[in-house]
Amino acid sequence: MAVGVPDNARTTGARRDVFDKDCPARTILDKVTSRWGVLILAALRDGPMRFHIVRDRIGGISEKMLSQNLRTFTEYGLMIRIVEPTVPPRVSYELTPMGHELAEQLRGLLDWVGAHAEEIVALRAPSAARIS
Amino acid sequence: MAVGVPDNARTTGARRDVFDKDCPARTILDKVTSRWGVLILAALRDGPMRFHIVRDRIGGISEKMLSQNLRTFTEYGLMIRIVEPTVPPRVSYELTPMGHELAEQLRGLLDWVGAHAEEIVALRAPSAARIS
Repeated sequence: MAVGVPDNARTTGARRDVFDKDCPARTILDKVTSRWGVLILAALRDGPMRFHIVRDRIGGISEKMLSQNLRTFTEYGLMIRIVEPTVPPRVSYELTPMGHELAEQLRGLLDWVGAHAEEIVALRAPSAARIS
Repeated sequence: MAVGVPDNARTTGARRDVFDKDCPARTILDKVTSRWGVLILAALRDGPMRFHIVRDRIGGISEKMLSQNLRTFTEYGLMIRIVEPTVPPRVSYELTPMGHELAEQLRGLLDWVGAHAEEIVALRAPSAARIS
């Protein structure tokens, strides 16, 4: 995806270091891996979704947190906000192609965690090594 | 990976739903996608690393946050703590095979964010859609 970006931005100096605390990539990483960000992006991978459907899909999320995250991701160009001219207006969200790429990455992570949760819980013993 | 887990735990009921707020997978997801968790796991993908090397690799992390995360991930069976009997003891951390699997997932995510950071920053315009 190189929408609206000069070609050379993707080959020279475009790769940023998330390990550097002052790098813009770190801020973006923080947002997409935030408690709710991961789940919102992953949920939308299945297609456009209305606000309340996303809210119901993600157990425990507040409308405030959902709104904040959707606004950020829309500003990031990862999703678009669709308003249908009904009364009241119907608002839904859809991943952009770039958002879909990211959601694929996150979905791999979620699938891995979902598949290994039992194992990790079983391994977590009280006798595990402690750091002094 | 099925260390210490009955065979059937991986085929029946083993896949958990991270979208469910009461599922153990959600807690694990929160930890591995925490602000520092992602970076710590990704950093260790390159091999065993001493505490202060991890600290220096990850810009902005405090020793306290690093210690807490390393303890959690050791308890999760994602890494092991290695103490060399020197004076003072040398402490380093190494991913387990399961930790390596997870780190691979995270590295894909980090690579994607690093490669797209410029594009996202460029797209983030003041005129972006706002949520009412």
